[in-house]
Amino acid sequence: MNYADFIPVWNRLDEEQRAKITSSSVRRTFKKGVFLHGGSSECTGLMLILSGQIRAYTTSSDGREVTLYRLFERDICLFSASCMMNSIQFDITLVAEKDSEVIVIPSETYKSIMNVSAPLANFTNEVMASRFSDVMWLVDQVMWKSFDRRLAEFLLSEASIEGNNTLRITHEIIGNHLGNPREVVTRMLKYFAGEGMVKLSRGVIEITDEKALKELAEN
Amino acid sequence: MNYADFIPVWNRLDEEQRAKITSSSVRRTFKKGVFLHGGSSECTGLMLILSGQIRAYTTSSDGREVTLYRLFERDICLFSASCMMNSIQFDITLVAEKDSEVIVIPSETYKSIMNVSAPLANFTNEVMASRFSDVMWLVDQVMWKSFDRRLAEFLLSEASIEGNNTLRITHEIIGNHLGNPREVVTRMLKYFAGEGMVKLSRGVIEITDEKALKELAEN
Repeated sequence: MNYADFIPVWNRLDEEQRAKITSSSVRRTFKKGVFLHGGSSECTGLMLILSGQIRAYTTSSDGREVTLYRLFERDICLFSASCMMNSIQFDITLVAEKDSEVIVIPSETYKSIMNVSAPLANFTNEVMASRFSDVMWLVDQVMWKSFDRRLAEFLLSEASIEGNNTLRITHEIIGNHLGNPREVVTRMLKYFAGEGMVKLSRGVIEITDEKALKELAEN
Repeated sequence: MNYADFIPVWNRLDEEQRAKITSSSVRRTFKKGVFLHGGSSECTGLMLILSGQIRAYTTSSDGREVTLYRLFERDICLFSASCMMNSIQFDITLVAEKDSEVIVIPSETYKSIMNVSAPLANFTNEVMASRFSDVMWLVDQVMWKSFDRRLAEFLLSEASIEGNNTLRITHEIIGNHLGNPREVVTRMLKYFAGEGMVKLSRGVIEITDEKALKELAEN
């Protein structure tokens, strides 16, 4: 495990700062489905994703969900340390979508170094700007794209992440990703099936006409 | 004009850094309706809003608009200097909603100091986190709130900004703020009028039952 793989400015921290991070960090594993962070009360720390897959989402007051972004191997999770910044006035929930292994740098450690290290503060800025860009992509999607296109795009993205055109995913989980009720997902999937773009069976969606799905998504 | 009013870490910059900012900054005025920034090509600089009102919005490929946030006196506009950060992968358009006066700190000047000053880099982080919070509020609105509630909230917010329950605003402009076609706005306003919450005349919307509108917005 090499910190510089995650934090490109690692070598611009001084020896003491690096030692402070390495000595206070802990390795943790999260089983699929386990919450890494939820609500504003927690502030575990900055997480470096060694393996697995993390989903960041936001919920409505009545419990509906929409995925904001996902984190993969070599990504950094900033919002598990959101208490570091006063101006973060929103809650993000983080859950392991696959068994995941992470390095946690405690918030106080990271913050104390960021406060005095311009390289680390600027790097943190870039990480936040990346997540901001992800959320702006979502705004673009929900504002301007019809649900059929968003669903087509989601199925293609899932297939690409899994490296497999046969997706083991329920309609409810898709609804949680896209922020729509399950029934809306089911209705649209049935329409896709009628058009020959997918084949549906219990808990499985098979992409049967990737080209048509792509055309729909990019339309 | 006192830089410390805008940049709370001003006194933690050294004398040379402060002189660099003050000597390179320029005061500019923007008439109502003039663009301060649009698209990724421009990178005017960081703007300190002395007076007026700035609207930040994003557009669809076919020209529809939705307001992301607004900036008022004493606010700082970061995205007019978005080229400072590589990870900002989205375009925001900025337009003067009222005659506005701003101080522009050139992007190169600001960036060169932020690169070496931890206080300035951390302050910039907080500014970005604030704007990120604004956009997360928007996500919450468009994902979970019905259009009647969003429109009620918008009318109340406009009345509060203007200090006046009689709003001089067209249905088209409201549509541009909320990301909906003009016809949808007109239809809902007519419904509001039917319920006695507003009174409509050419180019004017008068809030006649603020309490009912609030109840709808907060429902």
